[in-house]
Amino acid sequence: MLKNLNSLVSLCKRRGYIFPSSEIYGGLSACWDYGPLGVQFKMNVRQHWWKEMIHRSDVVGLDSSILMHPSVWKASGHVDGFSDPLVDCKECRFRFRMEKEINSCPKCGSKNLTEPRDFNLMFKTHAGPVEEEASLVYLRPETAQGIYVNFLNVQTSMRKKIPFGVAQIGKAFRNEITLGHFIFRCREFEQMEMQYFVSKESADKYFEYWMEERKNFLQKIGLPGTSLRPHEHDKDELAHYAHKAVDWEFLFPIGWKELEGIHNRGDFDLTQHQKFSGKKMNYFDSETNSSYIPWIIETSIGLDRLILALLCSAYKEETIGNNESRVLLRLNPQIAPVQLAVLPLSKKEPLKDLSYKISAVLRKKWRVEYDETGSIGKRYRRQDEIGTPFCVTIDFDSLTDNKVTVRHRDTMKQDRLAIDQLQDYLNGTNLF
Amino acid sequence: MLKNLNSLVSLCKRRGYIFPSSEIYGGLSACWDYGPLGVQFKMNVRQHWWKEMIHRSDVVGLDSSILMHPSVWKASGHVDGFSDPLVDCKECRFRFRMEKEINSCPKCGSKNLTEPRDFNLMFKTHAGPVEEEASLVYLRPETAQGIYVNFLNVQTSMRKKIPFGVAQIGKAFRNEITLGHFIFRCREFEQMEMQYFVSKESADKYFEYWMEERKNFLQKIGLPGTSLRPHEHDKDELAHYAHKAVDWEFLFPIGWKELEGIHNRGDFDLTQHQKFSGKKMNYFDSETNSSYIPWIIETSIGLDRLILALLCSAYKEETIGNNESRVLLRLNPQIAPVQLAVLPLSKKEPLKDLSYKISAVLRKKWRVEYDETGSIGKRYRRQDEIGTPFCVTIDFDSLTDNKVTVRHRDTMKQDRLAIDQLQDYLNGTNLF
Repeated sequence: MLKNLNSLVSLCKRRGYIFPSSEIYGGLSACWDYGPLGVQFKMNVRQHWWKEMIHRSDVVGLDSSILMHPSVWKASGHVDGFSDPLVDCKECRFRFRMEKEINSCPKCGSKNLTEPRDFNLMFKTHAGPVEEEASLVYLRPETAQGIYVNFLNVQTSMRKKIPFGVAQIGKAFRNEITLGHFIFRCREFEQMEMQYFVSKESADKYFEYWMEERKNFLQKIGLPGTSLRPHEHDKDELAHYAHKAVDWEFLFPIGWKELEGIHNRGDFDLTQHQKFSGKKMNYFDSETNSSYIPWIIETSIGLDRLILALLCSAYKEETIGNNESRVLLRLNPQIAPVQLAVLPLSKKEPLKDLSYKISAVLRKKWRVEYDETGSIGKRYRRQDEIGTPFCVTIDFDSLTDNKVTVRHRDTMKQDRLAIDQLQDYLNGTNLF
Repeated sequence: MLKNLNSLVSLCKRRGYIFPSSEIYGGLSACWDYGPLGVQFKMNVRQHWWKEMIHRSDVVGLDSSILMHPSVWKASGHVDGFSDPLVDCKECRFRFRMEKEINSCPKCGSKNLTEPRDFNLMFKTHAGPVEEEASLVYLRPETAQGIYVNFLNVQTSMRKKIPFGVAQIGKAFRNEITLGHFIFRCREFEQMEMQYFVSKESADKYFEYWMEERKNFLQKIGLPGTSLRPHEHDKDELAHYAHKAVDWEFLFPIGWKELEGIHNRGDFDLTQHQKFSGKKMNYFDSETNSSYIPWIIETSIGLDRLILALLCSAYKEETIGNNESRVLLRLNPQIAPVQLAVLPLSKKEPLKDLSYKISAVLRKKWRVEYDETGSIGKRYRRQDEIGTPFCVTIDFDSLTDNKVTVRHRDTMKQDRLAIDQLQDYLNGTNLF
């Protein structure tokens, strides 16, 4: 297990996973850019989540816009309540977030502080050519509200019956004061949320159901069960909308932290939108011949935070004899950005031609990297570091015996096999 | 071909493709939400573009953040130059975009107007707890700059040699004054851009190469060649950074309009970032032993606009005898949100059970909708309207003869075949 984040941050930059945003300009606080491997990894994780949700007949997808009508955030409670307490130091004018244990300025040490004032965490901007109250819009601080305001449109157009869910993946923005820990908390981040609409009577049942479903997902995608634990929110931790909230916490190098939240939001959101929009949010149940505002069970996970959890638990440093060591990412082969590396021992013909042909065949089914540069040892190290589960090495014997070597990332075990058996061999692995 | 956008807008809302954003609050100008079918359609189109780009060994991906360091936009020329001329009416105070042909207020008709002033189209916001100049950030108006500022990080970490490209898909924002035409021009939209880094000497060659590549892509994904034409920008149309720019225009119901732009941006962008950041943007060519700032060939398409082009060219109204008519979307089967509909003639057992089993098998490979509600005629109409290429109908004979009927969307031709031949039959179609 990774002890601290520094070596991961460094690997991510060196190997093209994650770069500091706008780095040539000194960076932009708490914003990160996903490099060539990072974007593919993120895409694979996203796709896994999406398939798990959407391949169910009771869940459909949505992609609502980041900019929404400002009334949405009045109804949701974000305009009035989504804030952190900020304090100004009267001596050095430094502004910071009030925490229970802070009674002096973290910058100059003065105890001469203002009373805490609420600072709203939503980013504000203006749409249209006039900067006035009417054109004020926010960058959404969560994707959930996009689902609630579309409840009727989705239910009607897709003729869904309760219980059903709406899943969405998208960017959200929070003007956080306390930042840091790599991609753990960013001002710009990506959420994967699913809102499951149910009757009041079945809310508890589905809460438990989704708790289990989400834990299964987290384990299937690559997190060990021992690094996951539930944390139920006390009454005084509960958000204003929540009847019940349990987090799946993950053991990051910075401690146990929230990874995914499961929330029973009751009928709070739809009731609020009905009140503020004047549109009836009722669902008509043709079986019981009754009409009601549905309750909502929400599952909410930050994609960037899941990426961090997966990288943390995959990271490993090992001694491999002869005082040599290696770093590897033991990623689930299904989501590894590169699944197969094709490595010819020489970059000259006729090895190049044969290796190209093998790459082309494998590329039809898997994510393949062809690499002919540097010593084979260095190339193995690189593939270990980026988490490639299998290397296919083509050597001079391959030209005569028509065999190649498959090297396993985790065990470094090597199998020699016929080229025409390569696909069958790989089909038998955990690449799927 | 679709005559005007109204019937498409209506189909999209009715069938769950695209809803007006925040509709219960009266909508938010020029913002749209993708419904359950729209999000799947968009995802398929996105994936097609991504695969086409990334499955090349000379192109890698990137996902840079929407919020970037403000100096990026000074260097790129957006802070000073990315603006529209706005005019105020001195009588009624209406503010509007100056066009060549306008000399009176479009609202009250007065000719008493101010001189045009430049209005910057970038959305502004503030990061951090203090609203001052230093914390001003913009929502990116294009994804391209995220690639340029990461040029060195990508080239080094992935050890790429010129020529190579970096592809990116992501949201961009423009505070447009002139809006409308459904999703043709939105304030929030998604770009798919690829920046190809080349030597100065080969820039013209690669410009022509990418012109062809992009046209092939647009045709492969479903746009007829007769609806595409190139439009080369005159000297006075060219953006400040461009040596050459050609658009692939598409014949929308509102006329020939830009769909995808191919630009020779020279070394403008990297030179500017070198100047503003103080970081050397040189590439060292080990073959010629020389060092230079690469030139850039850009391909840039709006995903939403491509979605609109695909929907427009797929939309068809037909008379089908008996004074009946139907609407259909002749979408490319590979990108259709639903590829197969499984329709039992009755929702009762044992037809239900058989149909469930067939759905489950097909779902492993394709995007399948199971629908048992309403008359079979109505269900066919619905599947036609959402663009499902094949319907699989299970009737009472299926229970004894083990056969089902496959109905083709475009021809309405029906084939009766054995259930155990269904997969082979579908494998032989254009679903791949």
